[in-house]
Amino acid sequence: MCRWIAYQGETISLERYVTAPDHSLIEQSFRALESSSSINGDGFGLGWYADHEEPGLYREVRPAWSDENLHHLCRHIRSHLFFAHVRASTGTPTTRPNCHPFVYGRWMFMHNGQVGNWSLIRRQVEALIPDAYYGARIGTTDSEALFLAILGAGVEDDPIAATARTLAAVSEIVRASGTDEPLRFTAALSDGHALYAFRFSSDDQATSLYYRDSGDHVLIVSEPLDKDTAYWQQVPPHHAIVVRGGTRAELRPFPCGTPLAAE
Amino acid sequence: MCRWIAYQGETISLERYVTAPDHSLIEQSFRALESSSSINGDGFGLGWYADHEEPGLYREVRPAWSDENLHHLCRHIRSHLFFAHVRASTGTPTTRPNCHPFVYGRWMFMHNGQVGNWSLIRRQVEALIPDAYYGARIGTTDSEALFLAILGAGVEDDPIAATARTLAAVSEIVRASGTDEPLRFTAALSDGHALYAFRFSSDDQATSLYYRDSGDHVLIVSEPLDKDTAYWQQVPPHHAIVVRGGTRAELRPFPCGTPLAAE
Amino acid sequence: MCRWIAYQGETISLERYVTAPDHSLIEQSFRALESSSSINGDGFGLGWYADHEEPGLYREVRPAWSDENLHHLCRHIRSHLFFAHVRASTGTPTTRPNCHPFVYGRWMFMHNGQVGNWSLIRRQVEALIPDAYYGARIGTTDSEALFLAILGAGVEDDPIAATARTLAAVSEIVRASGTDEPLRFTAALSDGHALYAFRFSSDDQATSLYYRDSGDHVLIVSEPLDKDTAYWQQVPPHHAIVVRGGTRAELRPFPCGTPLAAE
Amino acid sequence: MCRWIAYQGETISLERYVTAPDHSLIEQSFRALESSSSINGDGFGLGWYADHEEPGLYREVRPAWSDENLHHLCRHIRSHLFFAHVRASTGTPTTRPNCHPFVYGRWMFMHNGQVGNWSLIRRQVEALIPDAYYGARIGTTDSEALFLAILGAGVEDDPIAATARTLAAVSEIVRASGTDEPLRFTAALSDGHALYAFRFSSDDQATSLYYRDSGDHVLIVSEPLDKDTAYWQQVPPHHAIVVRGGTRAELRPFPCGTPLAAE
Repeated sequence: MCRWIAYQGETISLERYVTAPDHSLIEQSFRALESSSSINGDGFGLGWYADHEEPGLYREVRPAWSDENLHHLCRHIRSHLFFAHVRASTGTPTTRPNCHPFVYGRWMFMHNGQVGNWSLIRRQVEALIPDAYYGARIGTTDSEALFLAILGAGVEDDPIAATARTLAAVSEIVRASGTDEPLRFTAALSDGHALYAFRFSSDDQATSLYYRDSGDHVLIVSEPLDKDTAYWQQVPPHHAIVVRGGTRAELRPFPCGTPLAAE
Repeated sequence: MCRWIAYQGETISLERYVTAPDHSLIEQSFRALESSSSINGDGFGLGWYADHEEPGLYREVRPAWSDENLHHLCRHIRSHLFFAHVRASTGTPTTRPNCHPFVYGRWMFMHNGQVGNWSLIRRQVEALIPDAYYGARIGTTDSEALFLAILGAGVEDDPIAATARTLAAVSEIVRASGTDEPLRFTAALSDGHALYAFRFSSDDQATSLYYRDSGDHVLIVSEPLDKDTAYWQQVPPHHAIVVRGGTRAELRPFPCGTPLAAE
Repeated sequence: MCRWIAYQGETISLERYVTAPDHSLIEQSFRALESSSSINGDGFGLGWYADHEEPGLYREVRPAWSDENLHHLCRHIRSHLFFAHVRASTGTPTTRPNCHPFVYGRWMFMHNGQVGNWSLIRRQVEALIPDAYYGARIGTTDSEALFLAILGAGVEDDPIAATARTLAAVSEIVRASGTDEPLRFTAALSDGHALYAFRFSSDDQATSLYYRDSGDHVLIVSEPLDKDTAYWQQVPPHHAIVVRGGTRAELRPFPCGTPLAAE
Repeated sequence: MCRWIAYQGETISLERYVTAPDHSLIEQSFRALESSSSINGDGFGLGWYADHEEPGLYREVRPAWSDENLHHLCRHIRSHLFFAHVRASTGTPTTRPNCHPFVYGRWMFMHNGQVGNWSLIRRQVEALIPDAYYGARIGTTDSEALFLAILGAGVEDDPIAATARTLAAVSEIVRASGTDEPLRFTAALSDGHALYAFRFSSDDQATSLYYRDSGDHVLIVSEPLDKDTAYWQQVPPHHAIVVRGGTRAELRPFPCGTPLAAE
């Protein structure tokens, strides 16, 4: 299980939520509280929107906690919309292309979760990726495959529907493969303007997701960055968060799981 | 264009041909003589057979010339059959899973060359890999895909025929894609007992391949390790080298290209 | 606090105690039981004696648990005398030259502990290293400085006395610097024939050290590799273990701390 | 021999001179024209001033040409004063702390050259570093030692005089050691306001240094970035360039070598 944060709001230095002491994401790379695997030391990544339409990207295979570059970059890079992710591998190798976030043009994505029976159904999931996006598959993770499939499912027209369609298709592939393993998907997606986050699971144990709407910014996180529990709200399973205009989070149902629940 | 060496014969320390001064493989990582790209600094790898049926493997993303570990390992590891490879990427990322050699069970493979129009035909080539081997695809190179396709084409029964069948199929995919780019394939393959090397190209510019049969060992190389040209013999295009019993190299036609030439 | 193991005895594959499941050293890199810092993810290293007088060495900055090379090497390298170490940095950067073990000629050394007030007294400790050995200082850790100082204090004549003299001198430097921080030193040293391990601290909280003498081999470890507590014996503070002839561990007083206690 | 560039002027994206095609610094990492070692593949680094008094820093051990992060960072980071450096090691290990530039507080430094007889005189040069700065020595290069010695020689009062005093002292140490090897020093230094570059050698073969004053910015480089030779001016040996106010380069004598020449 990985840990991640997504921020949209006033332009700030990344360090405030990524590398600062106390319970920043780096702190979580050492000691996640709401996760079954407490160490997130299998690489990390940063993606941020600033002067260009396409986001910047920094991914590295070393643990985040010992990377001197990360501290410098988080202190010097400023952004109004950024993702940060620390990785605990579920089996794929620790390489930069397997680290989150993933970017394609102006789109950026990161994920915490798993695709049940991945090694057996991988090729079927990859078949969901249209040819136009398949050349962008430079790693081997389930997460990157989901991202490219979402892009190909009409992300430009309707990001939420494209994500729902992809998860419905992958859920069906997982189920048809005869496994009991779930599809769990807690993810963030952005085009540099709106920020979308999703909490979905094909079973009843969706990985955790929280958000905090502070008026001048919204933070969406795998787990709260501090103990001020009054400020952090849990995203219910099968719900999405949409942030438009930078600072207001809207919680809405994300019913892609419904067909499965109806079975 | 990468550079590689394959050795079979008396058990020796790897350093003699991999890291020693003069024109060892490491020297070639700096300064290849018969190659269009003179620097092979995009990772490297070693594979060797010793006490186990499966080969050992050491792959790293840094240039071979500055890797202290490589010098130690080549001095201390002894083998009767080993591969070493320095990589010049043709576009895929510099990650360990993208470095040669590749291993699967007791099989080991490395490659110098290219698959024309790779980014467009990649999925078709990957479709040649049977499901049983697809889970072993942990990188994204054309070379790894060729290896897994060869394994799935009957390598256990007839390694040369399996390689020929795979190259014929891939040549056809490349050709059908409408490109002028060739399929070039100078590769080594072993199961720990016999050593096979191939020189094939769909055009008339096959990448270079030489061998030297010294009585107590055989070396097969991208380019000669020294200037004793009398000892190094060029492998003609569309030929293979087979080494069985450890020390005698047999040159034989490798006619997988024939159907293409006949067109 | 780091974790380490030293083995001397029958020639075995390194994997048995370094990478095998259950409570091998790799397992401890995730989850040390008797250590204040539970994650040892700041690099690791292997050193082993085999065919050459000088040991082989493999050091890497990534966590041991995700290094594919380490698994291959531990499976394929065999030795009668080897060290393995997983590192939790006390402040110096995560670089290969800062990883243990350290080697010089046929000597090899690794360390768990700390030198109190290190950043202030570093130059004084480095001044203990004779010129002949100073060129071998390729990193910046306190541990490497201690090793080179021990080499220069007469290790060829009497390794235990050279270590004791060095620790007495460093203890005095630490004390004179006016700090309350201790010198803690739990270390292993070998010339390829005998194996020495030391447990020393200038305060009463020496870091843990255990050994197991199995008749055909001796293991010396930061903490027991399994729960068979009957087989593991704790090394008392201010004691050393000496293994000669490969398989018999001798426990003896290591009184370098006495002068300090007498003050 | 390394290659570097220093820029001061209008705020620009770093990519224009660091990673863009044609003859940017990255291109030079492949193929330096005026250098004895044509490959600069032993690590690289970027340092830049922006919103903080202290510069940002990104250093990595892989070759610059294959580092995806570098391309992203150079595209997204903007600065009015930045350094970039590609390294060809003269013997010290390829670690991040051994890569240029070096930073301390608001000071930044990078170097191309060598200190003759370094392994023998290293401790004497390190003795020039005051205690207050010695804790900042996290690598083992001659270049970092020169930087810390310059800081300690009064850089705050007079950067040029501090550099001259340090070079005079080191030249004397080199000379007294009885070697014929020179001290060669082509370096850049900045406090975030002014930019200083130096060309010095104790022999008559100073490493190359050029500058281009374009009105709205100044570039100082190891070798010209393009073939417009009319625009690039060579810095004569024993001269310095000073850029104040951002855009005007002043060439002045740098007579630290005089005492040696007078002998």
